[in-house]
Amino acid sequence: MSDTTPEPTTVTVIGLGNLGHVLARTFLDQGHKVTVWNRSPGKADELVARGATLAATPADAIAASDLVVICVLDYTTVRDLLTPAVGTLAGRVVVNVTSGIPDAARELGTWITGHGAAYVDGAVYAIPQTIGSPEAFVLYSGDEDAFGRYRTLLETLGRVEFVGSDAGLAAVYDVALLSGMYGMFAGFFQTVAVGGSAGIDAVPVTALLVRWLKEAIAALPGFAAEIDAGDYRTETSNMDINAVGLAHILTATRAQGVGVDLLAPLQTLFEQQVSEGHGAESLSRTIESLR
Amino acid sequence: MSDTTPEPTTVTVIGLGNLGHVLARTFLDQGHKVTVWNRSPGKADELVARGATLAATPADAIAASDLVVICVLDYTTVRDLLTPAVGTLAGRVVVNVTSGIPDAARELGTWITGHGAAYVDGAVYAIPQTIGSPEAFVLYSGDEDAFGRYRTLLETLGRVEFVGSDAGLAAVYDVALLSGMYGMFAGFFQTVAVGGSAGIDAVPVTALLVRWLKEAIAALPGFAAEIDAGDYRTETSNMDINAVGLAHILTATRAQGVGVDLLAPLQTLFEQQVSEGHGAESLSRTIESLR
Ligand SMILES: NC(=O)c1ccc[n+]([C@@H]2O[C@H](COP(=O)([O-])OP(=O)(O)OC[C@H]3O[C@@H](n4cnc5c(N)ncnc54)[C@H](OP(=O)(O)O)[C@@H]3O)[C@@H](O)[C@H]2O)c1
Ligand SMILES: NC(=O)c1ccc[n+]([C@@H]2O[C@H](COP(=O)([O-])OP(=O)(O)OC[C@H]3O[C@@H](n4cnc5c(N)ncnc54)[C@H](OP(=O)(O)O)[C@@H]3O)[C@@H](O)[C@H]2O)c1
Repeated sequence: MSDTTPEPTTVTVIGLGNLGHVLARTFLDQGHKVTVWNRSPGKADELVARGATLAATPADAIAASDLVVICVLDYTTVRDLLTPAVGTLAGRVVVNVTSGIPDAARELGTWITGHGAAYVDGAVYAIPQTIGSPEAFVLYSGDEDAFGRYRTLLETLGRVEFVGSDAGLAAVYDVALLSGMYGMFAGFFQTVAVGGSAGIDAVPVTALLVRWLKEAIAALPGFAAEIDAGDYRTETSNMDINAVGLAHILTATRAQGVGVDLLAPLQTLFEQQVSEGHGAESLSRTIESLR
Repeated sequence: MSDTTPEPTTVTVIGLGNLGHVLARTFLDQGHKVTVWNRSPGKADELVARGATLAATPADAIAASDLVVICVLDYTTVRDLLTPAVGTLAGRVVVNVTSGIPDAARELGTWITGHGAAYVDGAVYAIPQTIGSPEAFVLYSGDEDAFGRYRTLLETLGRVEFVGSDAGLAAVYDVALLSGMYGMFAGFFQTVAVGGSAGIDAVPVTALLVRWLKEAIAALPGFAAEIDAGDYRTETSNMDINAVGLAHILTATRAQGVGVDLLAPLQTLFEQQVSEGHGAESLSRTIESLR
């Protein structure tokens, strides 16, 4: 066992899809002894050529290493894979970077620790092409000791952030951050639709949107601080101004023949805040209508 | 008249609210001869102390300069202010940076040019504190010759972009870009609500969101290029993956006791694309359900 070793010499990667393949290759590039398993074994060919060992079964793969990194389709798949291999889990560290929801992560963590392994859940903020680059980051939660033991190794995949000992926390952050991303995407589609209705191509309006979003994002930490303090006094962009502003935007959007379904629910929250008498308070107070 | 002068020595600013005040001060700082007018005249005091001339009426203010910059509450206010002063408009350039919708900008432009002035409409992407800094940018549309004559002067407020001769175009871009911003804000509120439901403060989850959004924004120009080309083939993030992913997010969000009204309409568009048989095509194809 690696309790006294700062870095593993043995690591297993289960799941060699787009992401898992790059994880395994990154470990190989670092000089580690890598064992892999994938349902379709052909996906291991390139890795084996680079020095990886292909295991015949998940149990063989797990038995080969102290650290087991899992990256497959979903949590059901993880459970199905590990079920015939539970006898090999004791004493190992399982780092599962498969995407999933918080409750699934907690259940899997309980089940895996019940079989004597330490469980760390990871949420990957990267595409395969950026793994190993400074843009990539991965959030981890679960067993902090186990994480700490492999932190240096995991940092070769991207910047790491340990968010707490509840195994479900990385997935909570994942749901939270992806929600933010999808909101931004919804805004992007709305931008392109409005531009298109006036004959403006997507590329030029998106170039300006990118520039503007980078500025607008700078407002978020201030909003967050107001929310945590519960202090919504503001001298600048208050609920009244935003409720009037967004109403104009929705009117103008409809006048251009574009639907407003994506943004109308936000206006509902703004109007609720104004009608509850908070018009002079900060835009950040919108959160009070959400929780 | 300034037709042969590359830069004006005389500029009038009408409206000395938060934004207009800073516009006038920036012109003063550049050494221009600035005349100002504001409904509440006390707001001119500091500017007068710095060398500005306070006009008694909008007509006097307009008569004092070749270039007239207007920055008031809304387009109705612009029209009301100018109505008793129309006799002074002929031969001047009016640059109106009051926020408004495209049709209002077009109507005002027609009315002003009907009185012999050139009309330029502007949309300001800055807060008063950033005016004059490299982050600030202003989109202009309308009379391109008139704009060109004052371009250098206007560049002292922030980067400029002339988007077309239709006076309503700056406002179209404004509606488009602010829609994008509000989508991003909606995502932010969703992020904070999901985090809060698991006891995570807004500040730490927002710090990670800011990091992640900066990465995710990098995908937008590629999506825009796919949209303009109408070519939605993709090897990576397709509609199927995103429809499944967002469905999981909405389920997990509800499980955390947080509402999904802000994001559910996007899922509706994803599902429409999938049900129309486009699951293997790019996420960017969502635009086809919006227009
Ligand atoms: N790609 C990214 O950019 C990215 C980023 C962040 C997070 N993630 C997450 O990482 C995980 C993997 O993503 P990916 O892009 O690598 O996906 P992928 O390319 O579709 O690969 C899926 C993997 O799951 C395996 N799998 C699927 N069903 C299985 C089953 N019933 N039994 C055994 N193995 C099964 C596949 O094996 P076969 O090869 O035999 O089909 C393959 O190894 C997902 O949870 C994803 O959300 C991906
Ligand atoms: N502030 C920003 O960050 C920002 C950014 C981009 C765009 N804008 C746009 O710029 C415009 C002005 O914004 P602001 O922040 O400067 O607003 P503000 O501080 O509220 O100032 C409003 C201005 O409009 C004048 N006004 C209002 N009603 C009037 C009336 N009936 N007759 C004559 N004057 C009237 C006010 O005069 P009094 O002083 O007499 O009240 C004041 O000069 C708005 O269209 C806004 O959307 C602002």
